[in-house]
Amino acid sequence: MDKLWSGRTNGILDSKADLFMNSIKEDKELLDFDILGNIAYSATLRKIGIISEDDFSIILDGFKKVRHVLSDESSLLGYEDIHSAVEGELRKIVGDAAGKIHTGRSRNDQIVLDEKLFLKEYSIELMSFLIELKKNLIEIAEENKDVIFPAYTHMQKAQPVLFAHYILSYFEKFSRDFKKISECFENIDILPLGSGACAGSGYAIDTDYLMKILRFKAVTDNSMDEVSSRDYVQDIIYALSCIMIHLSRICEDFIIYNSSEFSFIDISDKFCTGSSIMPQKKNPDILELIRGKCAVVTGNLLQIIVLQKGLPSTYNRDLQEDKKILFQAGKETLKSVEIFKDILKNITLKKEIIKENISQGFLEATDIADYLVKKGEKFRDAHHITGKLVSYCIKENKSFNKLTQKELEGFSELFDTDFQQKITAGNCIDSKITSCGTNSSIVGSKLKIAYERLNTMLLKVQELKERNTTINQLLKEIKNEMD
Amino acid sequence: MDKLWSGRTNGILDSKADLFMNSIKEDKELLDFDILGNIAYSATLRKIGIISEDDFSIILDGFKKVRHVLSDESSLLGYEDIHSAVEGELRKIVGDAAGKIHTGRSRNDQIVLDEKLFLKEYSIELMSFLIELKKNLIEIAEENKDVIFPAYTHMQKAQPVLFAHYILSYFEKFSRDFKKISECFENIDILPLGSGACAGSGYAIDTDYLMKILRFKAVTDNSMDEVSSRDYVQDIIYALSCIMIHLSRICEDFIIYNSSEFSFIDISDKFCTGSSIMPQKKNPDILELIRGKCAVVTGNLLQIIVLQKGLPSTYNRDLQEDKKILFQAGKETLKSVEIFKDILKNITLKKEIIKENISQGFLEATDIADYLVKKGEKFRDAHHITGKLVSYCIKENKSFNKLTQKELEGFSELFDTDFQQKITAGNCIDSKITSCGTNSSIVGSKLKIAYERLNTMLLKVQELKERNTTINQLLKEIKNEMD
Amino acid sequence: MDKLWSGRTNGILDSKADLFMNSIKEDKELLDFDILGNIAYSATLRKIGIISEDDFSIILDGFKKVRHVLSDESSLLGYEDIHSAVEGELRKIVGDAAGKIHTGRSRNDQIVLDEKLFLKEYSIELMSFLIELKKNLIEIAEENKDVIFPAYTHMQKAQPVLFAHYILSYFEKFSRDFKKISECFENIDILPLGSGACAGSGYAIDTDYLMKILRFKAVTDNSMDEVSSRDYVQDIIYALSCIMIHLSRICEDFIIYNSSEFSFIDISDKFCTGSSIMPQKKNPDILELIRGKCAVVTGNLLQIIVLQKGLPSTYNRDLQEDKKILFQAGKETLKSVEIFKDILKNITLKKEIIKENISQGFLEATDIADYLVKKGEKFRDAHHITGKLVSYCIKENKSFNKLTQKELEGFSELFDTDFQQKITAGNCIDSKITSCGTNSSIVGSKLKIAYERLNTMLLKVQELKERNTTINQLLKEIKNEMD
Amino acid sequence: MDKLWSGRTNGILDSKADLFMNSIKEDKELLDFDILGNIAYSATLRKIGIISEDDFSIILDGFKKVRHVLSDESSLLGYEDIHSAVEGELRKIVGDAAGKIHTGRSRNDQIVLDEKLFLKEYSIELMSFLIELKKNLIEIAEENKDVIFPAYTHMQKAQPVLFAHYILSYFEKFSRDFKKISECFENIDILPLGSGACAGSGYAIDTDYLMKILRFKAVTDNSMDEVSSRDYVQDIIYALSCIMIHLSRICEDFIIYNSSEFSFIDISDKFCTGSSIMPQKKNPDILELIRGKCAVVTGNLLQIIVLQKGLPSTYNRDLQEDKKILFQAGKETLKSVEIFKDILKNITLKKEIIKENISQGFLEATDIADYLVKKGEKFRDAHHITGKLVSYCIKENKSFNKLTQKELEGFSELFDTDFQQKITAGNCIDSKITSCGTNSSIVGSKLKIAYERLNTMLLKVQELKERNTTINQLLKEIKNEMD
Repeated sequence: MDKLWSGRTNGILDSKADLFMNSIKEDKELLDFDILGNIAYSATLRKIGIISEDDFSIILDGFKKVRHVLSDESSLLGYEDIHSAVEGELRKIVGDAAGKIHTGRSRNDQIVLDEKLFLKEYSIELMSFLIELKKNLIEIAEENKDVIFPAYTHMQKAQPVLFAHYILSYFEKFSRDFKKISECFENIDILPLGSGACAGSGYAIDTDYLMKILRFKAVTDNSMDEVSSRDYVQDIIYALSCIMIHLSRICEDFIIYNSSEFSFIDISDKFCTGSSIMPQKKNPDILELIRGKCAVVTGNLLQIIVLQKGLPSTYNRDLQEDKKILFQAGKETLKSVEIFKDILKNITLKKEIIKENISQGFLEATDIADYLVKKGEKFRDAHHITGKLVSYCIKENKSFNKLTQKELEGFSELFDTDFQQKITAGNCIDSKITSCGTNSSIVGSKLKIAYERLNTMLLKVQELKERNTTINQLLKEIKNEMD
Repeated sequence: MDKLWSGRTNGILDSKADLFMNSIKEDKELLDFDILGNIAYSATLRKIGIISEDDFSIILDGFKKVRHVLSDESSLLGYEDIHSAVEGELRKIVGDAAGKIHTGRSRNDQIVLDEKLFLKEYSIELMSFLIELKKNLIEIAEENKDVIFPAYTHMQKAQPVLFAHYILSYFEKFSRDFKKISECFENIDILPLGSGACAGSGYAIDTDYLMKILRFKAVTDNSMDEVSSRDYVQDIIYALSCIMIHLSRICEDFIIYNSSEFSFIDISDKFCTGSSIMPQKKNPDILELIRGKCAVVTGNLLQIIVLQKGLPSTYNRDLQEDKKILFQAGKETLKSVEIFKDILKNITLKKEIIKENISQGFLEATDIADYLVKKGEKFRDAHHITGKLVSYCIKENKSFNKLTQKELEGFSELFDTDFQQKITAGNCIDSKITSCGTNSSIVGSKLKIAYERLNTMLLKVQELKERNTTINQLLKEIKNEMD
Repeated sequence: MDKLWSGRTNGILDSKADLFMNSIKEDKELLDFDILGNIAYSATLRKIGIISEDDFSIILDGFKKVRHVLSDESSLLGYEDIHSAVEGELRKIVGDAAGKIHTGRSRNDQIVLDEKLFLKEYSIELMSFLIELKKNLIEIAEENKDVIFPAYTHMQKAQPVLFAHYILSYFEKFSRDFKKISECFENIDILPLGSGACAGSGYAIDTDYLMKILRFKAVTDNSMDEVSSRDYVQDIIYALSCIMIHLSRICEDFIIYNSSEFSFIDISDKFCTGSSIMPQKKNPDILELIRGKCAVVTGNLLQIIVLQKGLPSTYNRDLQEDKKILFQAGKETLKSVEIFKDILKNITLKKEIIKENISQGFLEATDIADYLVKKGEKFRDAHHITGKLVSYCIKENKSFNKLTQKELEGFSELFDTDFQQKITAGNCIDSKITSCGTNSSIVGSKLKIAYERLNTMLLKVQELKERNTTINQLLKEIKNEMD
Repeated sequence: MDKLWSGRTNGILDSKADLFMNSIKEDKELLDFDILGNIAYSATLRKIGIISEDDFSIILDGFKKVRHVLSDESSLLGYEDIHSAVEGELRKIVGDAAGKIHTGRSRNDQIVLDEKLFLKEYSIELMSFLIELKKNLIEIAEENKDVIFPAYTHMQKAQPVLFAHYILSYFEKFSRDFKKISECFENIDILPLGSGACAGSGYAIDTDYLMKILRFKAVTDNSMDEVSSRDYVQDIIYALSCIMIHLSRICEDFIIYNSSEFSFIDISDKFCTGSSIMPQKKNPDILELIRGKCAVVTGNLLQIIVLQKGLPSTYNRDLQEDKKILFQAGKETLKSVEIFKDILKNITLKKEIIKENISQGFLEATDIADYLVKKGEKFRDAHHITGKLVSYCIKENKSFNKLTQKELEGFSELFDTDFQQKITAGNCIDSKITSCGTNSSIVGSKLKIAYERLNTMLLKVQELKERNTTINQLLKEIKNEMD
């Protein structure tokens, strides 16, 4: 097919140059969105009389066929980009009428529309997966509500916490990510059409109508800004990289907890690879791959940023590269969230080992110091005494609960007969009474609130779905309008 | 001074190791915020009886002196970090009572508090600068309201636009950035205290009271999340990198427009460097430096992300590096916004040159095609005819406004006597009637709306200032409370 | 086909997990190299009697068929990775004998081999393209040997130089890149086989023989290092990003020189896109795309680095992601070098415009100051006088060559009658007599040396080709050996 | 002091703009190198008669005083950059003669010289530290020559190796880094002087003489390339980031091995922080900080790359930002290498725990399969049998060395009476006989070779030291010349 812009250059574009500029391989992800945008735009042109009623009907039918034809990937090859493919195939079907669909529009604003329509659908799908992931976090927390778990700082056992408390720390992280995606949706949800090549359109395009049928909440304020910026792509890739960073951290935790030396968790065979000759080996390949993909998506963020650095106004062809960046980041993240939520459902805690680990870690030391402070000891001295006590236990190979009253009194006369009753991992946990602490009733109520927050998120996704449309939905509405 | 954590290691830390871990050089930025947090925390400890009324008075006075002493940078040297410095100096003044201020707190949550207090103040300052920058954008647009300017795509003249329209495209970009910073503020505005080392605090810290006097809108939900994450730092650095990318683009525009070949703008000598022997040279060093600093801040974003990648729960010492990253990004961006807003006030348009440039660029070609379409020509044919017309003009070295009616009719009989009247740069501009277009009345109303949006932003900053506090303000409130 | 490592997990890997770990899409680039490595390894196993002569013949034939079958991409689908595909298809053909080819080897060292074989071939191809690119640089310099060109600092005209001098500045940059690739080749050229999973192989693999037939210059020194590191991938991606940075800079130059405001160069229509209605527009899309791809490859570099950050010893599955990173960077760079070298052959200088531009730029100012210094004026005063002179010319709208002797003497009595003869752009150029300067005889000799350096590079590539092998070459050698 | 370039702008540079462009804070690192370069350049100007013998003596003395004055940091403040500071102070001492030292030179080539002189010295220092680090690696390997250690893949125990073999895997990595730095030195070692502002110098500067006294091995080939590129900075930062990645990996290993769950190593208290109340806690803060600094240096690499992306020819002020990037990366890496080499000397292996760990890990499984293969079993069946055997051992809670002959025969009749003698961790190790394997005599000889390689590296550093000079050395040589 002729280039849309040909004429001047007599079509003698160098064949390697042609190939070099070709973006159809990435563009194929945009097929449905390009057609969706085209249908809506044609409907608008019809409204202002540029496309006649008759042509419109033919064009509508044409688009349906185009969609069918181009869903076969091999039909796309040979086209320069998705816009050429759709118009080219439409022309085969409806003839010259196809030419009208570009009136008052440019590829510069059309590609922004396609990407935004893609991103709205993508965001909704990702948010749904994030909700499932978080649901699975809550469930694994609920199922192991009573498990006491060692919290680490510096990869050293620090204090006992509820396993649920640990898991909820990731619930918080992924909730921030959900919020980010939802804010991205709002920033994306602005109609770019009407921008033309860069100065606005010379036709009285009814952008309010377009906004309504394509379900955008607003029309862009400035045509030059709209065609020159990929902020809406960059923002979402940033949000994706936040998700991946959080995933990389919980994966790191699980990889370590899955080592035979820690042995805190058991990952189902369905999500591990093994060795035929070393059956005890459980390679957490998927967790490692997610951690690896975090590097990939981080790089994607850099790519989209560097792409825009120092670029003069307005549209420059550099921006075409944004698609491969976006689609890679989008897929890697979606796949990672999807598989990780499944892994969560297939992890079992090795409670006995964890319990033993807790009892050997002197994790109650902080609470012993607090015990002394509450009995009247000075803060620093309390720490000093506790330190000596732990050293003694290590030397004697004893855990705290094996200390006799006499031994205790040798360190401080403030150690009372309530020591053994007060200094247990359970009590340590319940003593953390600040509203963000691991006290079990606090954690219990945070779990309940987490369910409620999940519901709010579900409603949010529901709302966004209604603020989105599809080819079929749009066709139905147009049909209604025409009747 | 002894390390806060010493005792076990007999204080025999290797001197190079000591130096390696030292963060006082970066921490000095946090002095006021550490003291502010300490005062508030002491007030809370007093409320629950851990610090007596008498001690509290002494400690309050102590902090004022500490602030004075440590404002001399040389007093900081020798301390490991800002917390040690403040406690160490306080101890010199008030003796052992200083030890109590750490009850129920850890350096893990304290550093998060310091950073958040810093970031709230920083955000407000940056937002104020952004408002000024945008005000200056509007003013330069207003002052040159009638200037017609060439819009570029691919560094090639594309269509005439109002200079104000061009400038407003950056107003939009920086408005998105303002919104991002303001969202960051909300995410930062959550009290971390009560988290302790990682499990929560074993003391009945009144976090609601703390939240109130330190002006946070909420208390953190999960202690492990709070001490392990630097999302709040990463988010703001991302917002900063967005600002820098936008600055790099307008700087690139201005560097090019400032070249002698373009010669569209004149930057005041106050903001250029020159050559003593080539007085015509006006090196836009500051614009170039801003573009360079964009690379620096982009790297800062990467640093904070990579820092967190694959880090296991919860606090790891890697996170200490976040401060040098944050402070660099913070300063480079603040300085860049500040100087750029001043440059904006010192730029003059070379209107004559721009005007001449417009007349030679065939920028009205798109409108000629539209003219033909509106007269009934088919879209593609209209383009074809226009192309031939431009080629003719180039060959004859004529601009459109020199074409005779006869010449025009040689290309299409649809060219009517209204051609010369309709096809002017001004008409081209006014023909872009979509609500994001460069039509002069649309741009006029966008300018008015821009002023209103600025006012809303000013109100926002005012609101945030009220949601922030300072040492003096807090001291006053505590005094009132005590009376 | 069964997973190579199945058995323990009863083959019940979750289907999504299976898909998530699948790398066949990227691996397909490695097909030939995997087969090449397999053939060589089988030959080695035959040497130590693990594969019998008869089996070996069958296996050899098998591999030829496998190559044919798998060259159809659809045959690859369904396999987990390239190793499984090759072994799986071989098993279909030769039955159980296929199992032997893995004796004493692991996928951990096999994948390193495949990548290294790929990289050796890739490096040679890229180096060849770089040589062509540099040849075209020299040719365009030669063709425009006498063109005087303005050198820019800060996007401001600074001094006149020979166009050839300007072009040679890129010759230097790309020569450094060539050297980097060639150093990468040396680092890659180390046989990884014998490493096994991580501890070495338990079989007396004749690595010297393997080294010889696969044309490696050395055998790896440490098995754990070999399977755990992707330094050899990272190094080459760094070299690629250097190439892309250099390309981005010359593209930026050309994009600016191609603007109508500069109009220094004309890019052939074969490498530009245009506008059907604005025939004067010559969008340098390809140059912009290369600049955009620079962002992509920079991101790839980051990806491979972040992938390895903080990874524990030895092999972790994260490393699998290296392939998509490498292949993207590899292709984008190769394509960019290839198309850019073609563009170079299709660029014409607009000599008249350049000449006029030179005459208006006061580019000889530095030389006027030097003129005065040589006549005895102090350095600072000479600069001062020249500055005044330029200001005068600007005010009077005169170029230097229009100044009368009287006017000159008004500024300094040191201005002699030789002024007009000495102060010409040509003389300015010839006055730059340091060995790196733009003096025309120096540049002439640098051009000659550049040709010689090209020849050395050609010889280098020839040498590397001989240090590389292919399937056909290896088969021939084995056949000779067997005869 | 007046700006070097003032005159035209009447010195009315905006004060904020002045501050914004100021680089003296970073430049101070370059003081000695700027003076070194100035002395050498003055000597060259004397040679061609631009500076008289008398002036030269005065200037030489002047530089000595300037160095003394400016070594007090406060004297630098107020200057724009290091060149202004040195010239400004020199002028105070020697008066107008100071003006001559810039004849035929520009700040564009002077800054490159300063950076290159800095980098040569820096590289030598870093290489020396790397040698010490590697020496300490060899020593810790030697000291624990007989320790059998578990090699991990996927954080799962895989095969037994010698601890020395594990350590040597890092010796290899750091050897590659050493080589990179040494290659950087060669690329840096090219004299930039003679380039002038960008076109070359108009004075007959004797660059051969300069090259000789400043100990460069060559003179730059192209002035425009020389002043426009920061490749030599970028290359070394890439090498630094390679070092940091390698450090981050061994740090990650050690952090994990230092956890109480692994407990393989003991880090001296001198390099750990602890908790006063949890004496068993050994926080590996320094290792974590190094891992964190890896993120910082990775970001520095990105910064220097992005800085250059899309920058037009030749010098642009953006490049000034390279100094803060370089100095940060340089210091962080140097400090990290220095402290890590010290840590290595303060690490003890917990041999008993490691031994026990080895015995429980079924690490000999691969060798059992190999045992069966060598007895005649098919590869796949051997794996199958071994898998069953391991499963049996796990169920019966037995290690391999507790299996009776009868039990063994139940799995395969190929299990002979030599089983217990052959299947030991030691034998497994010795069976890895490929030249990169962990066989003890191979590792022994690699250790010896490592010492020899260290010696070669020492000689290399010695050679580079001789290819470098200092102010005192240069002064001595000039004195000799003058006598």
